[in-house]
Amino acid sequence: MTEALTSPAVPSENSASAENAAPVLQNPAVAGVPAETDVEAAVHAIADRSRNAARKMAHANRAWKDRGLRAIGKALLDHKSHILAANAKDVAAERANGTGAALLDRLTLSDARIAALAAALENLATLPDPVGNVVRGQTLPNGLRLRQINVPMGVVAAIYEARPNVTVDIAGLALKSGNAVILRGGSAAAATNAALVTILREALESVGLPADAVQTVDQYGRDGANVLMRARGRVDVLIPRGGRDLIQTVVTNSSVPVIETGEGNVHIFLDASASEEMAVDILLNAKTQRPSVCNTVETLLVHSESTVLPAVAAALRAAGVTLHADGRVRAALPASIESVPATDEDWATEYMDLDLAVAMVDSLDEAVKHIRKWSTGHTEAILTNDLANAERFIAEIDSAAVIVNASTRFTDGGELGLGAEVGISTQKLHARGPMGLTELTTTKWIVQGEGQIRA
Amino acid sequence: MTEALTSPAVPSENSASAENAAPVLQNPAVAGVPAETDVEAAVHAIADRSRNAARKMAHANRAWKDRGLRAIGKALLDHKSHILAANAKDVAAERANGTGAALLDRLTLSDARIAALAAALENLATLPDPVGNVVRGQTLPNGLRLRQINVPMGVVAAIYEARPNVTVDIAGLALKSGNAVILRGGSAAAATNAALVTILREALESVGLPADAVQTVDQYGRDGANVLMRARGRVDVLIPRGGRDLIQTVVTNSSVPVIETGEGNVHIFLDASASEEMAVDILLNAKTQRPSVCNTVETLLVHSESTVLPAVAAALRAAGVTLHADGRVRAALPASIESVPATDEDWATEYMDLDLAVAMVDSLDEAVKHIRKWSTGHTEAILTNDLANAERFIAEIDSAAVIVNASTRFTDGGELGLGAEVGISTQKLHARGPMGLTELTTTKWIVQGEGQIRA
Repeated sequence: MTEALTSPAVPSENSASAENAAPVLQNPAVAGVPAETDVEAAVHAIADRSRNAARKMAHANRAWKDRGLRAIGKALLDHKSHILAANAKDVAAERANGTGAALLDRLTLSDARIAALAAALENLATLPDPVGNVVRGQTLPNGLRLRQINVPMGVVAAIYEARPNVTVDIAGLALKSGNAVILRGGSAAAATNAALVTILREALESVGLPADAVQTVDQYGRDGANVLMRARGRVDVLIPRGGRDLIQTVVTNSSVPVIETGEGNVHIFLDASASEEMAVDILLNAKTQRPSVCNTVETLLVHSESTVLPAVAAALRAAGVTLHADGRVRAALPASIESVPATDEDWATEYMDLDLAVAMVDSLDEAVKHIRKWSTGHTEAILTNDLANAERFIAEIDSAAVIVNASTRFTDGGELGLGAEVGISTQKLHARGPMGLTELTTTKWIVQGEGQIRA
Repeated sequence: MTEALTSPAVPSENSASAENAAPVLQNPAVAGVPAETDVEAAVHAIADRSRNAARKMAHANRAWKDRGLRAIGKALLDHKSHILAANAKDVAAERANGTGAALLDRLTLSDARIAALAAALENLATLPDPVGNVVRGQTLPNGLRLRQINVPMGVVAAIYEARPNVTVDIAGLALKSGNAVILRGGSAAAATNAALVTILREALESVGLPADAVQTVDQYGRDGANVLMRARGRVDVLIPRGGRDLIQTVVTNSSVPVIETGEGNVHIFLDASASEEMAVDILLNAKTQRPSVCNTVETLLVHSESTVLPAVAAALRAAGVTLHADGRVRAALPASIESVPATDEDWATEYMDLDLAVAMVDSLDEAVKHIRKWSTGHTEAILTNDLANAERFIAEIDSAAVIVNASTRFTDGGELGLGAEVGISTQKLHARGPMGLTELTTTKWIVQGEGQIRA
């Protein structure tokens, strides 16, 4: 395997179409930029190989797929130095480009991060297989036996930013759910992703699964991504994973069905009856435990009759949080607690940092109105001891997750018992909220009879 | 009510925004064609009123919604002559335009058809409410109580052809599932649809439900449809219902999530072991019971070792079916059974008429290969007495419905026990196969705790 890793352009012999496999693994800088129609033909050929691989994956039973996941985990650890060397090149190039610290951090792999990827694959291998699960079924009055079962989507495509861990995450989830996956990662991670894809493909082959179940179109750059987005009929679902701009680009340009993930302008409504202890604990957790993720709180709405605002604000300030507060909140805070004036932009902003917008409202209705205006429909929470208010909040907030008296950080596939997560869907079609393995499947109706005809 | 019906432009007083309601009910010929930006603003205003109405519908309990459905049914019968008069205008105009008999038939309403619409609404009222259904739930190790429940989509839009019955069907299904609906019907049915929408809105108001839960953008013509297709964020899901061209137009131009329905290039594979009686009964039923619908069979694949082809072909010919056969089939048929030579176009065609393509294959594998190449993924059936072949067919055919030893005509929401049907989805996202009321809902996670934070 080491030999193949040092010359990734060599097609593997088991590949369904070995003569076409080479470009997938080539470095785009080496391969040169093909003309646009060539890109379309090349990406379509990749998708067609994915379709063939998907048929094989759909028939692989759980034990076989789990062997594949464990083989990938082992290969990542075995070839750690190779991955880190490729990653070091990407990181060095980006550092030379003046890329900021946060993006560099997301791009950078380490021993610990590779170990975490392998551990996540091991966890995935312990999860039940969604394929074949009977959703519902019955025997009809005419004797027909009816079952609706989960089956793989087929060809799943993912477009994401320069985060090499997503390459392994998405591939693992797609494979476990019996799909083939086509990846398009951020170009800043091209060398790392090329190394990872080579390793994933070889690990699949080592257990007899099709290498083409994992392919990339990174070598075709933006043109490749554009062809992928328009490959309706060839690609069954497209998952954009990243920031607002990436998601909007995909949503606007794609004719392939898209599952939108990510954006979370998350609110907590602090009702008048919430206790100080609960309010302080939950706000601190929801804002400061991991500020850069989508389920972190971004706006606090405080009921004007709440007496706990000063304690909550003091705790947040002590934790380093900048409070962007409206006039009433600023007037209600003691002079010792600093804040900056909030504008409409603050209500709209997903800070993903140690910043929190704070507004005062006079009622649950006002809180609901604010949330309806500004929320992205990800997660909203109410902290209250009023049963009627809790029930009204649950009924009237139209978000993927509605939480009563707990941290918004629980909107997460792992935390909610799904075992693993593709992302958090903020759309209403197909999947809403944390997407687990089942959300990477579709269903099929199976009808069995002995000659029944329709009357 | 009769007074309002004779002057449909008069806004109803209960409407949330009565000053804006008038144009919705105006006849486009009277209202004139507004400039494009005006159309955008007008359609967005309609969508925003739909959003408000959707909030009210989401909180209406089943009994209330069922009262609304029954009020609509009664109003359709009460105002039958008004509807038929409007419909007669549409039909006369289309006849003058030289529209063909099949399209005229779809456009035409009658006493019996209006009675059938009212009966369908009554049936809808007897069905369980999908809203509030608990999909799954558990108490997590940290004590959080977790439920995933069905909630309405919100604003559902439908774009369809000149079939006024779809106006009532889709509205009824959307309302029962707690949604607001925005309709765009074929312009040839404009007068009929305007009359129907007026009646639906008044019936909703008569039971205290929001009139704006049913709106139309017919008065804005194609421009209105285009704005509707791009109203992502305002419209939650768009359902095109009609022929291939309409669906392709919507899929290509829409940024709103789409559920594709309809196209059915349906296959039956007649395996060597199928009995003559079953083969004759099922083929006759699948081809001739209602040839114009999507679950009718379009291609028969016959195993070369089957001995029942002559009997099947004779029965189909006797029923008036034109057989488009490949060379081997034509050679195998006695001279007394007429057929015409098939080309690749026949394998691709959804005839929706008394025509059937017939090909001979030497194995299940060949049949599967043919189906993979030509199927639209709607429904395929195998007729066989071979258990291994039945299982392989079920596993290898990637269609919304896979049928063993029964007619393809069973792929239908009513027949499969869903009670009612929005259409047959041929895509894999969100809904696949017959779409019932549940498929017009999304889900919401509800998490309840007493101060839990994430470790």
